[in-house]
Amino acid sequence: MSSFDHWIREVLEKLAAGKLDVAGALSELKDLPYEDIGFAKLDHHRSLRGGFPEVVLGTGKTPGQVAAIVERLAAKNTNVLVTRATPEQAAAAVAAVPDAVYDEISRCLRVVKQTIEPIGKGPVLILCAGTADLPVAEEAAITAELMGNRVERLFDVGVAGIHRLFGSLDKIRRAAVLIVVAGMEGALPSVVGGLTDRPVIAVPTSAGYGASFGGVAALLGMLNSCVGGAVTVNIDNGFGAAYAATRINRLSGD
Amino acid sequence: MSSFDHWIREVLEKLAAGKLDVAGALSELKDLPYEDIGFAKLDHHRSLRGGFPEVVLGTGKTPGQVAAIVERLAAKNTNVLVTRATPEQAAAAVAAVPDAVYDEISRCLRVVKQTIEPIGKGPVLILCAGTADLPVAEEAAITAELMGNRVERLFDVGVAGIHRLFGSLDKIRRAAVLIVVAGMEGALPSVVGGLTDRPVIAVPTSAGYGASFGGVAALLGMLNSCVGGAVTVNIDNGFGAAYAATRINRLSGD
Amino acid sequence: MSSFDHWIREVLEKLAAGKLDVAGALSELKDLPYEDIGFAKLDHHRSLRGGFPEVVLGTGKTPGQVAAIVERLAAKNTNVLVTRATPEQAAAAVAAVPDAVYDEISRCLRVVKQTIEPIGKGPVLILCAGTADLPVAEEAAITAELMGNRVERLFDVGVAGIHRLFGSLDKIRRAAVLIVVAGMEGALPSVVGGLTDRPVIAVPTSAGYGASFGGVAALLGMLNSCVGGAVTVNIDNGFGAAYAATRINRLSGD
Amino acid sequence: MSSFDHWIREVLEKLAAGKLDVAGALSELKDLPYEDIGFAKLDHHRSLRGGFPEVVLGTGKTPGQVAAIVERLAAKNTNVLVTRATPEQAAAAVAAVPDAVYDEISRCLRVVKQTIEPIGKGPVLILCAGTADLPVAEEAAITAELMGNRVERLFDVGVAGIHRLFGSLDKIRRAAVLIVVAGMEGALPSVVGGLTDRPVIAVPTSAGYGASFGGVAALLGMLNSCVGGAVTVNIDNGFGAAYAATRINRLSGD
Amino acid sequence: MSSFDHWIREVLEKLAAGKLDVAGALSELKDLPYEDIGFAKLDHHRSLRGGFPEVVLGTGKTPGQVAAIVERLAAKNTNVLVTRATPEQAAAAVAAVPDAVYDEISRCLRVVKQTIEPIGKGPVLILCAGTADLPVAEEAAITAELMGNRVERLFDVGVAGIHRLFGSLDKIRRAAVLIVVAGMEGALPSVVGGLTDRPVIAVPTSAGYGASFGGVAALLGMLNSCVGGAVTVNIDNGFGAAYAATRINRLSGD
Amino acid sequence: MSSFDHWIREVLEKLAAGKLDVAGALSELKDLPYEDIGFAKLDHHRSLRGGFPEVVLGTGKTPGQVAAIVERLAAKNTNVLVTRATPEQAAAAVAAVPDAVYDEISRCLRVVKQTIEPIGKGPVLILCAGTADLPVAEEAAITAELMGNRVERLFDVGVAGIHRLFGSLDKIRRAAVLIVVAGMEGALPSVVGGLTDRPVIAVPTSAGYGASFGGVAALLGMLNSCVGGAVTVNIDNGFGAAYAATRINRLSGD
Amino acid sequence: MSSFDHWIREVLEKLAAGKLDVAGALSELKDLPYEDIGFAKLDHHRSLRGGFPEVVLGTGKTPGQVAAIVERLAAKNTNVLVTRATPEQAAAAVAAVPDAVYDEISRCLRVVKQTIEPIGKGPVLILCAGTADLPVAEEAAITAELMGNRVERLFDVGVAGIHRLFGSLDKIRRAAVLIVVAGMEGALPSVVGGLTDRPVIAVPTSAGYGASFGGVAALLGMLNSCVGGAVTVNIDNGFGAAYAATRINRLSGD
Amino acid sequence: MSSFDHWIREVLEKLAAGKLDVAGALSELKDLPYEDIGFAKLDHHRSLRGGFPEVVLGTGKTPGQVAAIVERLAAKNTNVLVTRATPEQAAAAVAAVPDAVYDEISRCLRVVKQTIEPIGKGPVLILCAGTADLPVAEEAAITAELMGNRVERLFDVGVAGIHRLFGSLDKIRRAAVLIVVAGMEGALPSVVGGLTDRPVIAVPTSAGYGASFGGVAALLGMLNSCVGGAVTVNIDNGFGAAYAATRINRLSGD
Repeated sequence: MSSFDHWIREVLEKLAAGKLDVAGALSELKDLPYEDIGFAKLDHHRSLRGGFPEVVLGTGKTPGQVAAIVERLAAKNTNVLVTRATPEQAAAAVAAVPDAVYDEISRCLRVVKQTIEPIGKGPVLILCAGTADLPVAEEAAITAELMGNRVERLFDVGVAGIHRLFGSLDKIRRAAVLIVVAGMEGALPSVVGGLTDRPVIAVPTSAGYGASFGGVAALLGMLNSCVGGAVTVNIDNGFGAAYAATRINRLSGD
Repeated sequence: MSSFDHWIREVLEKLAAGKLDVAGALSELKDLPYEDIGFAKLDHHRSLRGGFPEVVLGTGKTPGQVAAIVERLAAKNTNVLVTRATPEQAAAAVAAVPDAVYDEISRCLRVVKQTIEPIGKGPVLILCAGTADLPVAEEAAITAELMGNRVERLFDVGVAGIHRLFGSLDKIRRAAVLIVVAGMEGALPSVVGGLTDRPVIAVPTSAGYGASFGGVAALLGMLNSCVGGAVTVNIDNGFGAAYAATRINRLSGD
Repeated sequence: MSSFDHWIREVLEKLAAGKLDVAGALSELKDLPYEDIGFAKLDHHRSLRGGFPEVVLGTGKTPGQVAAIVERLAAKNTNVLVTRATPEQAAAAVAAVPDAVYDEISRCLRVVKQTIEPIGKGPVLILCAGTADLPVAEEAAITAELMGNRVERLFDVGVAGIHRLFGSLDKIRRAAVLIVVAGMEGALPSVVGGLTDRPVIAVPTSAGYGASFGGVAALLGMLNSCVGGAVTVNIDNGFGAAYAATRINRLSGD
Repeated sequence: MSSFDHWIREVLEKLAAGKLDVAGALSELKDLPYEDIGFAKLDHHRSLRGGFPEVVLGTGKTPGQVAAIVERLAAKNTNVLVTRATPEQAAAAVAAVPDAVYDEISRCLRVVKQTIEPIGKGPVLILCAGTADLPVAEEAAITAELMGNRVERLFDVGVAGIHRLFGSLDKIRRAAVLIVVAGMEGALPSVVGGLTDRPVIAVPTSAGYGASFGGVAALLGMLNSCVGGAVTVNIDNGFGAAYAATRINRLSGD
Repeated sequence: MSSFDHWIREVLEKLAAGKLDVAGALSELKDLPYEDIGFAKLDHHRSLRGGFPEVVLGTGKTPGQVAAIVERLAAKNTNVLVTRATPEQAAAAVAAVPDAVYDEISRCLRVVKQTIEPIGKGPVLILCAGTADLPVAEEAAITAELMGNRVERLFDVGVAGIHRLFGSLDKIRRAAVLIVVAGMEGALPSVVGGLTDRPVIAVPTSAGYGASFGGVAALLGMLNSCVGGAVTVNIDNGFGAAYAATRINRLSGD
Repeated sequence: MSSFDHWIREVLEKLAAGKLDVAGALSELKDLPYEDIGFAKLDHHRSLRGGFPEVVLGTGKTPGQVAAIVERLAAKNTNVLVTRATPEQAAAAVAAVPDAVYDEISRCLRVVKQTIEPIGKGPVLILCAGTADLPVAEEAAITAELMGNRVERLFDVGVAGIHRLFGSLDKIRRAAVLIVVAGMEGALPSVVGGLTDRPVIAVPTSAGYGASFGGVAALLGMLNSCVGGAVTVNIDNGFGAAYAATRINRLSGD
Repeated sequence: MSSFDHWIREVLEKLAAGKLDVAGALSELKDLPYEDIGFAKLDHHRSLRGGFPEVVLGTGKTPGQVAAIVERLAAKNTNVLVTRATPEQAAAAVAAVPDAVYDEISRCLRVVKQTIEPIGKGPVLILCAGTADLPVAEEAAITAELMGNRVERLFDVGVAGIHRLFGSLDKIRRAAVLIVVAGMEGALPSVVGGLTDRPVIAVPTSAGYGASFGGVAALLGMLNSCVGGAVTVNIDNGFGAAYAATRINRLSGD
Repeated sequence: MSSFDHWIREVLEKLAAGKLDVAGALSELKDLPYEDIGFAKLDHHRSLRGGFPEVVLGTGKTPGQVAAIVERLAAKNTNVLVTRATPEQAAAAVAAVPDAVYDEISRCLRVVKQTIEPIGKGPVLILCAGTADLPVAEEAAITAELMGNRVERLFDVGVAGIHRLFGSLDKIRRAAVLIVVAGMEGALPSVVGGLTDRPVIAVPTSAGYGASFGGVAALLGMLNSCVGGAVTVNIDNGFGAAYAATRINRLSGD
């Protein structure tokens, strides 16, 4: 029996036992369609679980808004991650919350208030093809760390110089989940996917010019990957890739 | 020390010990760049492991070619999966290998010669939005089963009638991995992804017309999903989704 | 108080009054998250209301499947509309349900078992630009009729011969809702929208060739219409336009 | 008989009665093709009717031009709405017309000189999926209010946290017309459309990044919505959605 | 004074003179908004003028429908052009109207009942790049002839063998209007446009494969032509190009 | 016999008559492939003819470069037109050539050194749909004037208020060539093309937002125009439309 | 002095010497603009050179037309290559020219009448990623052979199983020119380009489904290749790649 | 025997001869999978060969980063090429390395420390269509020079004034490799490719506006070129074209 059924039964038993009148029972049940059928449990589960961070998207907010949000969350002792934070947003947030830390490359702003509970069966390996892919790769790495994964990095291993990739076969083989970040033709996930049978998450980046069309070439390359079982996220979505890796890694460690 | 280093050392020691001359050692090493740095191991790993199937893409092959391939693989006692097999290909294959089984909806042709070793921490749940998505959903389901996953199905639960989805919350909550198949606007993965914190793989289908552009609308919807941590595969790629789910589920059970 | 609250209260009161034990109350409530928070009410509302039809999409079904569905629904005395029905599907359905009626132009198959309750404040006017748009316009017209609207038609009034449109200004002015169907450049809704202040629904069609891109040119034209307050549906979606018109017209008559 | 026929008859009768000579009759009739066949009537109808605003698009105008237009219209005691007004345009307009009011989020500038005549059968409900959709949602809300609708708001109810939507079912059920604003995958209208049988207008927004392609993903999602009867407007077109809602709501109240 | 004013004056004068009563005058004027403000004059002008053909688009019509239309028009002694006629449509039409002539390459079906009045200052020259462009080039040529132009042809003069083009400089120089038909990269109009200062109409064709995208490459090439003053029509629209050439040539000869 | 043949014959006859030796004849002929087969004649024709302007594209040039080019051309007494000139380029040019005139709306910079020879059979009429199309319409108007056409303007006559267009039917009817400029859905050329049988050149503009895709919607609308014989130029290409109109108008007056 | 100058001089000298009169000289020179300025030399060069084939595109021709062309060319002892020939075209051609040879996979039809003169510095290596790319790879191989190149093949070496590629490093290293054929994500040229410093020509194929968009994904991948100096041809254009390789290889051997 | 086999044999022979123990042999072999199977040889080959430059992409780097990289490479006496360098990056680099040379048009920054070894059979000819293509053409020219090619330029020879191209036929005929740079419709490579049988590399540029779509029109034009054997690189990729030309030219001179 689900905990939801269990909870309803308790209310009903209290009513049947006279410990609650109809108005009281109704009052307890009335939020039910949205509060109690398990959705909220999930939400609480998230925020209560070992420092899992609250995530804020910086885009479209003023520095003052970002600072205010970070301050409020930090005051609740919640870990916070602001993605796509501008230097101006970061400066405002750090002024308000001195232990906020900003990473210029990934544009991630972090506040760690609670110990991050480690998860998963093994490390999440972040690979990227070129230096232009670094911001997205670092966004994935920082996000994955904040969500409890052990993170390893293997950067600048593009397929045109494939020997560099082979120098790190051991890293590839021991990873539990692999996040492969690449712009331009987006070929790296196919090569990496052939070297491991662990889950591979491909992240196209907007690095490139001309017919890269802001990452579309890499995205299509990854969606059409000839390696079985690779999956893809949106262009430049390092955060989403790390979140997916966390879902996968947490499952393996549950 | 990696098994690769170990293997080279053995050859060198035999040479140093005079058990092998230079020509013999060279001969053993000469395939090394491709045979021995671990790639082949992966391949064997796959085919040797509990009935993991050989997969053949039916598209572009004649019925005779499909029959011949299936016959040859079946003779090696390998489990076989032919995807996107036409009825003509299936008929030829069944004539050649009587225990081949064809599923018209998913266009999957299977031969099971070895017991399939069960994997993973829990079931893979396949959801689909409408009846037009059934072929892709079934391709995912049959592939996942052949790869050792326990599979559950939850079909025809589109977001326009969201109460049908909520009638099966328990199924959603107990799944280890979820494959969500949808055409048209591709909204189902976002809703499902908010109901579980397990890995969610979205599969856009080409079901639809007009501005669905053969599945592009669903694909874009899934790539832009507002739910954190959903990942996407190519349009109509039920096979790839199942393979990804297998990578994830196997990790959790390793 | 909503009817939902009312219904829960009744169950609780029966429990409090001993007319129901906890198991019985739980049993009544257990379907609640999906059955009783109002979704189902909507569905019943639809099918119970004056002959509102069950709608079946013909695409992708075999003639036998269509015939079976139509037969089953007709046996329940429900009005039925099959859209995009092929002649083969229609023949099978008519063989099974002799009072099924097929319209070749719109590819609509209808069975009318209940009197259609008239709705709305005025007629729904269907305009179309050219003869190539007729199938979509007729799908809209037949759908709107089956849903209870009074329907008027004004066909072959493309903007290149704008005087034909002006010959029917009275029809335009008296319509409660206007559905404007056009392929090619899709200019008609802009002109019509300037002649009335009633709701205008634009339907792009795939009629055309070359740079019409299967209706994309018309779709973009309609989305960018310079007339305020026109709305658009998917390419060739005569059914959807009629359904939207019904929602609008029913509101006005409620 | 239409008022147009009536008007011609009057001229002819005056001529037949000798109250007008041929030259005078011709002079009265000569503007007829454009002035008198009903077009102008529509225009007057609009501006004369209960404070219906004159609408000015700010884009591409200088602050001075906007200020001058607003001043001229306000001097005629007309209600004015400037959409997509920049802060600079707004400052210039407020300097010229002190009772002009600017809303930074929606970039709407308003002057209300006449009482706004209430219209319609019920409220127009504006829903939006995320905070990034607020500017478009507010443009719709302010426009709808200026056009006489009663407006309710239900913001930040994205499908990934669907329980928030269900907490406001009553609001959804009592709305006469619903405007659903969403970026990214644009899934919200499908879910909302399944919860009501009133008209639903979907507004895609350009919120998002990467494969959202400036709102194309949301637009395609909405055009392909699996819910029957939803209609769509151009990306970020909150104004157009509100205008369409006004056409619908006014019809119901006529 | 326009003939329209003249016509109204006549009616008014008859009324003033008592030769017509108000009802009669009204009856004559009542069709005025669409019949008499000049539109119809244009239409009559067309059909009355020296054999200018009625044009019928074959696409989407049954052979019987085409035959019936051709028969009806031919019975009125009108010249007829059916474009995009299938062989089946042509056979049916010829059976009904024995002097109908079908051209398999261009898929044009013609009936000439009236002498075609020659127009224009000089010949219309039709150029095409390759043999795959012939159907479109011939559609343009036959249309232009039926509309009264003298037509010259210069086929198979693609830019990769530019010497062939230069062998016919005289033809190019004496043409009044040039229609340049090309698929693939669509470069021919730019070269031709540099060799004449007469009007040049570019027609992209769908000839090609792969990244020609059904004529999009040629269309874009032509729209971006570096030669000043070239204009473009839709892909494969030989008819439209000939019609435009006729408008131009007729102007020069008026 | 062409003038080219004539010219070769003269050289040969001089050689045969001994007035020229082989080396001299060869020297005269050696430039032949590019200088003398008529290309250069065309170029001279252009620049010598009644003040036909030299045209310079401002885009991508520095103010100093523009000023230097204008100064050099003006010194040769040539009329000059700089299109897409920035205010900075214009200021530099005016400083160098005081009789240079800049138009801010169209971004055209002109120097008129020679009397412009009037051409053509009648006026070129420039129509535009909305105020946002003005820059392109004015570029067309100014270019057409500089090339010798008499120009009339009919602005702000969008199809949503079609009565404004009908108030100027006389202007439309007397134009020799019509240039119709429109953004958004680009419907105006279809309506105008139905009101005249003179050549119609459609110019899409990038005015609009969202699904106008920088003018693509208008471009597609115009390419798919349902009116026969309209032709199209590139997005925002007012200059090209005027050049094409000049080719047409000059032909009619030759 | 070019052979062109030489040829003119000969004519002039004959004229000066009285061996030719002016009419005769003019007659010899009159084809000059197109025949003699070197273009034709190129053409002759091609057809005269060691069996270089005449190439015919089968698409859009009837079997009879193909047979007639092949027969006529073979009668002139020319080598012939028909690309994209259907089986029906091939059957007709073989019936007419018994030594014509058809290859079903590549759809190439060949007639070899002259010995093919070998060219180039080394072999042209054709690589392809998967069996679905075979038709294009074979078209390239057969074309390259007919044009005189020595051809080697390395098929089914996709990047997901990169060890297969490394088993043939010697083949890759000794190739003069490499043609790399791949569909889906088109990653193979990047990997191959990193293993050689010889010219690499990438050929995208339409193999794939869904978001491969008929080869667009592979095309974009190749255009964005991270390896320096790879070049690309149109989708499925095996012929063009072989022709380019021939231009390169012939240069090296000249 | 390949040099790779040779190298392994040497290690093995030293081990067999006792000149090396197993640990020493293993140590020499252990980097083998990535260092010694020939990849590195290629890299060294490049940098050691006659001044072949190290290439750095300026995009996305700070001026300080560029200066530091250039300084480090120059200190190793390597020739350096920074492409797409901004003026700020260039200023910083020149301050650090005074013999660095910056070209503003191409945005190339060069340091030449070693004599550049000439390569190839003949000159590389760079053609471009218009002045807007100059930056890309110059990037190609400077790159080609730095890589050892003799470079000739033929600029501003667009197809609309084709006589300019023919004035330089000799340059075209003597080139070993041709790089043809063009924006807008990209027609130049087709014309040039018909005038030579040497390798032709087409480079589309983003010059243009409207429907040039940032170079897509030119790219498609080039991919669809009707001339056999032309190849294409990414939009604006002058560097890649020069690199490809170098691969080709070096092959011919090897």
